[in-house]
Amino acid sequence: MFTVTVRDHMMVAHSFRGEVFGPAQRLHGATYVVDASFSGPELGPDGILLDIGAATGLLHEVLAGLTYRNLDDDPAFSGTNTSTEVLAQVVADRLAPGVASLGPVTRLVVTLHESHVAWASYERALEEAR
Amino acid sequence: MFTVTVRDHMMVAHSFRGEVFGPAQRLHGATYVVDASFSGPELGPDGILLDIGAATGLLHEVLAGLTYRNLDDDPAFSGTNTSTEVLAQVVADRLAPGVASLGPVTRLVVTLHESHVAWASYERALEEAR
Amino acid sequence: MFTVTVRDHMMVAHSFRGEVFGPAQRLHGATYVVDASFSGPELGPDGILLDIGAATGLLHEVLAGLTYRNLDDDPAFSGTNTSTEVLAQVVADRLAPGVASLGPVTRLVVTLHESHVAWASYERALEEAR
Amino acid sequence: MFTVTVRDHMMVAHSFRGEVFGPAQRLHGATYVVDASFSGPELGPDGILLDIGAATGLLHEVLAGLTYRNLDDDPAFSGTNTSTEVLAQVVADRLAPGVASLGPVTRLVVTLHESHVAWASYERALEEAR
Amino acid sequence: MFTVTVRDHMMVAHSFRGEVFGPAQRLHGATYVVDASFSGPELGPDGILLDIGAATGLLHEVLAGLTYRNLDDDPAFSGTNTSTEVLAQVVADRLAPGVASLGPVTRLVVTLHESHVAWASYERALEEAR
Amino acid sequence: MFTVTVRDHMMVAHSFRGEVFGPAQRLHGATYVVDASFSGPELGPDGILLDIGAATGLLHEVLAGLTYRNLDDDPAFSGTNTSTEVLAQVVADRLAPGVASLGPVTRLVVTLHESHVAWASYERALEEAR
Repeated sequence: MFTVTVRDHMMVAHSFRGEVFGPAQRLHGATYVVDASFSGPELGPDGILLDIGAATGLLHEVLAGLTYRNLDDDPAFSGTNTSTEVLAQVVADRLAPGVASLGPVTRLVVTLHESHVAWASYERALEEAR
Repeated sequence: MFTVTVRDHMMVAHSFRGEVFGPAQRLHGATYVVDASFSGPELGPDGILLDIGAATGLLHEVLAGLTYRNLDDDPAFSGTNTSTEVLAQVVADRLAPGVASLGPVTRLVVTLHESHVAWASYERALEEAR
Repeated sequence: MFTVTVRDHMMVAHSFRGEVFGPAQRLHGATYVVDASFSGPELGPDGILLDIGAATGLLHEVLAGLTYRNLDDDPAFSGTNTSTEVLAQVVADRLAPGVASLGPVTRLVVTLHESHVAWASYERALEEAR
Repeated sequence: MFTVTVRDHMMVAHSFRGEVFGPAQRLHGATYVVDASFSGPELGPDGILLDIGAATGLLHEVLAGLTYRNLDDDPAFSGTNTSTEVLAQVVADRLAPGVASLGPVTRLVVTLHESHVAWASYERALEEAR
Repeated sequence: MFTVTVRDHMMVAHSFRGEVFGPAQRLHGATYVVDASFSGPELGPDGILLDIGAATGLLHEVLAGLTYRNLDDDPAFSGTNTSTEVLAQVVADRLAPGVASLGPVTRLVVTLHESHVAWASYERALEEAR
Repeated sequence: MFTVTVRDHMMVAHSFRGEVFGPAQRLHGATYVVDASFSGPELGPDGILLDIGAATGLLHEVLAGLTYRNLDDDPAFSGTNTSTEVLAQVVADRLAPGVASLGPVTRLVVTLHESHVAWASYERALEEAR
């Protein structure tokens, strides 16, 4: 199994609803350093799983739809806590449609680092490109 | 699958028995930077797998039972080499009982970084909270 | 010259005024991983410049006054862009009064990492403890 | 499951064939920071999966056959793009014969970091030592 | 004193002349992760030393003139060993003319990381923008 | 000014005397990831400040005299707290005599990272090689 990972970041504001969140119920923010990992059992004809430049471009495009925003104002997240786990899934699900054209990828993991001491990831299968 | 990881550290003295260890048979020490990764297939009602603050607290509590000690003097490790692998398992097994109350976690991985060029981890299943 | 550095972090929302900031004029947020570096020409009687635990506590206390907040709502920053540079100075200046009791520190540098590809710092002198 | 990882690096020149590579079709180079991860379900009699020093030595020996070279001139790679993915597999396959004597290892993952924002890995099974 | 740092990277081939370089006399390559640090005693009217986006753009432009190349073929380096130290100076000197328009910067440090265990930097003064 | 840095590590046991140290008065241990930074105003005839391989060798030799030991038993530290600051100075002072033969180095900084959240350094001048 081969895995290729590319890294970018986004900077968002948000607040959480629920007593468990304590002071994070206030409006605050985060830099998420985002790692997108693409896996597949074999390489394509050029000897790569996918073009790292194209993968970086796809990730950047997905993050452009989230960064420099207050996520509390984004209708896509109405009624949802935009936790690190939820945002990892959002990024993965938004990456998925574009992955098929990149290469023979069957699995995707997105990891969001919210600080030097905490991070979260979401892993999902992909239908392979054909 | 979702995974949340939190990081802390401990600082211990110990020595190893066995020729394979060479100079590490002498009493020496290590900082272990410890990553505890909690995984589960779905999020709880608040949109999180577990509260990162509570997970950090649980990890800190487990490490408090090990840090600033000479592990050679700890009866729990009598006759055992407290290798990085063994300590990863010890931390995971001591975390396990407290995880059920944190959230719907089914798998736990503990990684101990002993330097910038070597680390070890132990992965185990958990019975899910109910 | 001796220097001791401790690391912590804060998570804030804010927005910037000025065309130069582009999309960062919108309300967004950041995790700042904060390094506070304390320097002095000689060590105290215990063979340390300062107690790392006490320095960590002082930094945490200063960051507690900023984290999990929308800095746009904080009167202390009224009319000020809370850029990474400005916040580095704010943290340094708020640390300064508490440093004298920590040890013989004559210089302080605070670095705020806003992502894996950008960070800023502010350096200032301190009157030495006596 | 236990996993032990050791890190080293190599510095190579190479070029790629294929339009997808853009400017990387020119002769250029890379530092690959290489992580070799060895996994097995149980520890050996000394309480370790393998000796970290011996694993470091094995990895260094394999990388010595690649580093400080122009891979375009190496007959082993004739007609092959020495992409990060391909090189991860090469390192893993060259490590494999030597792993059996290190300890009860059943899985091997090799990760090559080509920069702070991109890395690739190859994972393969191993026949366990006996 | 304020300092702002931005990070990018370049990937080059080269060889060294001189017995001291041992196997690095062969054609090989390196990824240089490049940190450009801009310092000045005071902030501009927007509360920043310089625009991080503009600084990132300037650094990227300078590195574009070096990356994905065999430096042995670049006439600019004829008769020069393109050591990490030399390249740090080259990047700094090529950044310098563009810095004045970024902000009130008086000092520039460029650091090139050639691996996880070695890096080099060059520091120089700048005439301040006016 | 040019600066070259190389990294290695050591793993020691020790204890501290003084109430300020709290639980660190017990015998415990640390991994110190050690960065040695060599600075000088100009490069030597080969276009380098010093040979990175030779600098790495010198650092490794100095650390070999400290690693895998209980520093409480080392007569060199009798009556001294082997704090991170003190050990940074010890490493710097032991490196100093060997630096002159490496290259035109005038300043030396040694940084010891004791964890991911704390590190200390010692900076000293050197008489330049001639």
